Amino acid sequence: MDSLTVKTAKREQFVDITGEVQDFLTSNRMEDGVLTLYCSHTTGGLTINEGADPSVVRDILVNLERLIPRRGDYQHAEGNSDAHIKSSLIGPSLQVIVHKGRVMLGTWQKIFFTEFDGPRTRKIWIKWIAG
Amino acid sequence: MDSLTVKTAKREQFVDITGEVQDFLTSNRMEDGVLTLYCSHTTGGLTINEGADPSVVRDILVNLERLIPRRGDYQHAEGNSDAHIKSSLIGPSLQVIVHKGRVMLGTWQKIFFTEFDGPRTRKIWIKWIAG
Amino acid sequence: MDSLTVKTAKREQFVDITGEVQDFLTSNRMEDGVLTLYCSHTTGGLTINEGADPSVVRDILVNLERLIPRRGDYQHAEGNSDAHIKSSLIGPSLQVIVHKGRVMLGTWQKIFFTEFDGPRTRKIWIKWIAG
Repeated sequence: MDSLTVKTAKREQFVDITGEVQDFLTSNRMEDGVLTLYCSHTTGGLTINEGADPSVVRDILVNLERLIPRRGDYQHAEGNSDAHIKSSLIGPSLQVIVHKGRVMLGTWQKIFFTEFDGPRTRKIWIKWIAG
Repeated sequence: MDSLTVKTAKREQFVDITGEVQDFLTSNRMEDGVLTLYCSHTTGGLTINEGADPSVVRDILVNLERLIPRRGDYQHAEGNSDAHIKSSLIGPSLQVIVHKGRVMLGTWQKIFFTEFDGPRTRKIWIKWIAG
Repeated sequence: MDSLTVKTAKREQFVDITGEVQDFLTSNRMEDGVLTLYCSHTTGGLTINEGADPSVVRDILVNLERLIPRRGDYQHAEGNSDAHIKSSLIGPSLQVIVHKGRVMLGTWQKIFFTEFDGPRTRKIWIKWIAG
């Protein structure tokens, strides 16, 4: 199965994987269809948001932390319950449309792997459906 | 690429696009498969929820605003960080099942474009995969 | 259309449906593709998270309840607005990759139906796309 590898550097971080996703499509001459991206980890996720101003990602992370702090009413012993909760709020699976060999994104959109319990090495699985 | 256009009238609003989605399927004689709907904007999203009682949508918007207020610890200078955060919580991409030419929805379900930084004219991109 | 039936026992509960999803794939000899799972209800959802330690699911439910309590600023008269809000945060639709007849999940991942207004009998609709 195809995959992307992402190395994160901090506990919480958004990693822009748009370039890697486009390279995957180009290398495999995938022209028109839907690409499923899947995060195989329970303390990360996948989202799309603004990539132009890094303050946007900062604001998302800071406010998720405000809502779901690292310490709280948690029973899971690994100390990363906040990361599991954020993972389900952001979601593990993402679909993007591919048209004429390009991943279709709005003007300001980038595809992000969202790390909530790094630093770690992460795998994003990929499945192409032509259509 | 196929798309729907949605004009929103307020800063925050759910717009029921179920009829437009069904019309798209009917016009194109799409019978069985999966339809990917994609919000090409970083301050909107797509969701499915109850459409019968408008209080449900009101309660979702009011309580998202309670959790992620318009003013807060934000560094993004455009004053719409709350909208970006809500966009990632609701999600940009949605898949619906199509069976015998009908978008399959539960009794109370409607498909909504979720506007968090309107009023604007928005594009929802569409990709059909037969199956 | 294919579906799974889930009976929930409590108002809020995560039900592990991984076994049922794998059985569906095996029974139908589905080898490689993407499976769309769809929750046909407006007070439930679908997510993937850790299934090994039940404390993770407990921590997710307790903290969603902290953020979106059962009683609050709600106008919907049925008393389940919290469930509708959680449904849109978790999401109604989920895609998983299938490879060599197996639903591809990370080491700790399980597929959950998320009940927010049970106990009820719920339908999860399924659509297979080979690819």
